[in-house]
Amino acid sequence: MSNRLPTLAVVGATGAVGSVMLDILSTRENVWGEIRLVASPRSAGKRLTVRGEQVEVQALAPEVFDDVDVAMFDVPDEVSKEWAPVAAERGAVAVDNSGAFRMDPEVPLVVPEVNAEQAANRPRGIISNPNCTTLSMIVALGALHRAYGLNGLVVASYQAASGAGQEGIDTLRNQIDKVAGDRTLGDRAGDVRAAVGELGPFPAPLAMNVVPWAGSLKEDGWSSEELKVRNESRKILGLADLKVSATCVRVPVITTHALSVHASFDRDVDADAAREALAAAPGVVVQDDPATADFPTPADVVGTDPTWVGRIRRSIDDPTSLDLFLCGDNLRKGAALNTAQIAEVVAAEFTRG
Amino acid sequence: MSNRLPTLAVVGATGAVGSVMLDILSTRENVWGEIRLVASPRSAGKRLTVRGEQVEVQALAPEVFDDVDVAMFDVPDEVSKEWAPVAAERGAVAVDNSGAFRMDPEVPLVVPEVNAEQAANRPRGIISNPNCTTLSMIVALGALHRAYGLNGLVVASYQAASGAGQEGIDTLRNQIDKVAGDRTLGDRAGDVRAAVGELGPFPAPLAMNVVPWAGSLKEDGWSSEELKVRNESRKILGLADLKVSATCVRVPVITTHALSVHASFDRDVDADAAREALAAAPGVVVQDDPATADFPTPADVVGTDPTWVGRIRRSIDDPTSLDLFLCGDNLRKGAALNTAQIAEVVAAEFTRG
Repeated sequence: MSNRLPTLAVVGATGAVGSVMLDILSTRENVWGEIRLVASPRSAGKRLTVRGEQVEVQALAPEVFDDVDVAMFDVPDEVSKEWAPVAAERGAVAVDNSGAFRMDPEVPLVVPEVNAEQAANRPRGIISNPNCTTLSMIVALGALHRAYGLNGLVVASYQAASGAGQEGIDTLRNQIDKVAGDRTLGDRAGDVRAAVGELGPFPAPLAMNVVPWAGSLKEDGWSSEELKVRNESRKILGLADLKVSATCVRVPVITTHALSVHASFDRDVDADAAREALAAAPGVVVQDDPATADFPTPADVVGTDPTWVGRIRRSIDDPTSLDLFLCGDNLRKGAALNTAQIAEVVAAEFTRG
Repeated sequence: MSNRLPTLAVVGATGAVGSVMLDILSTRENVWGEIRLVASPRSAGKRLTVRGEQVEVQALAPEVFDDVDVAMFDVPDEVSKEWAPVAAERGAVAVDNSGAFRMDPEVPLVVPEVNAEQAANRPRGIISNPNCTTLSMIVALGALHRAYGLNGLVVASYQAASGAGQEGIDTLRNQIDKVAGDRTLGDRAGDVRAAVGELGPFPAPLAMNVVPWAGSLKEDGWSSEELKVRNESRKILGLADLKVSATCVRVPVITTHALSVHASFDRDVDADAAREALAAAPGVVVQDDPATADFPTPADVVGTDPTWVGRIRRSIDDPTSLDLFLCGDNLRKGAALNTAQIAEVVAAEFTRG
């Protein structure tokens, strides 16, 4: 351990999450020496701005990880699977935002507000960043778990188009342009499916619609996204027996995931005490006064760091359950921000000495 | 009881639901003699088409109910509260789609596929039609209850703008027009709230957003819509102890409500057997093959009569629970169609003789 500032590599610097990452690295307290930007060969040579400086993007190759202390990966699963171990072999700690390693028992799955201590337990030199849907709720649920002991979750999601990347954003924008101005669509006569044009990465029209599908098909009719919510929540919270049912639904929102959550606990709960526990938790903001229309919505939350929680109610027919509505920016806390936070936990190991 | 065809009055004939009602009365098998159209004095004299004939709208007054056998009401709560008893005093059976009488123990709350027999038990001469959100799921849940014995529901809704009437439809259409074409909105920089213009009946922007609120504020932070889902489901199914938690959320869809439902039963469930029970139930269509993107979405369901059910999964961690996604046209089954079906159940009493 030395006192020098550690070197960071950002792999996937030119993508939708990568661009948010450069923004985040430019505004958070700086803990990094050199920041190296890395992307696919076709983006090599591009110049991007980070911390107010122009940096040239390098093509992904083993040598780019030489002398790197932490390497963040925001790339597809198959790219992470190949390259995160290469970075680790060259001595970097890989912080990976793909699904490639999340359920690997030798790779910790870290949300700094919930289980920061797990970051040090990384036998493969890799730390995984959770899925964006899980991340949009887990900081708040971690706080409630500490207060009451969580034993069950029923989750219904309202997921933004940007969860499907830049193609998702572009598709929804184009569809909204096409349905605008037509006074018949979505009513008895109008045919939204015919009007929206290209479906892009979505299996049905998204403008003027909601689509009960995200990810790929897994066993027994579950989507990969729904299984991630279950399996990652269990791993992050360290609750191997947590009962989880999730239904993941895409909605015509550009960015910020929302979630309706019914959470069951070991002990009786109280809505006011739950509000206090949430308000005291780092990374959580309570916005809960329906009398003044005060609750989180994606359009208001986008671009912010915290998990926003509102509509906090004790279930009428079960004193051990809470019903909540949560919002989190899926590109920030749901992806780039949490990755940056994990990297900062690792960076602290270098600068502590 | 005579063999003549009964006389029907449609009160609220000029509203959003009223216009769907005239469409429904014109296409279903005709069981009515005279159909009288009634509305507020400012709409009196208008001529509307029903069953291919022009009918002049009469102003609401006690005399319009003379010789009427069934009077449907699609009007605000306070109008129903005053006028449904007037119709009943004059000998008509009032079928009311407002919230005025739904929880009155002397007024049955009827969904013909679930509890048609309750229509005959009407000491006040009034029958209530349930809330549109409850109606978008209850036919399917009734079928599952008969198969497995329902004991709990966790519901998250995706409710259409038309649930807030014509003003809701117009507001969403105007907001979509305003956000169309702007490539920054909903992203880090763009301000949807500033762009959408008038909020209309919604407490937050609805275009490019979801809003966790529908109805008015009741005790302990619950919305009236959420309490209706709980209380009406209990009454229709005859399950006084059913545990229900609902979170009602408005989405930028013109018409058709969707619902994510986690349903708990007395016995172990099986997804294939549940699909069969649902497919065999009148008024329910199963659309459930995610491998071919076959699941219901509001844009495809709008304008149809059934309750559509897909994403049928046995909960991974609880063999007595099912997770489902349902869609129903909130202006048809959710309002006008169910009212027409109740009226037909009553009409059969007149023609049976």
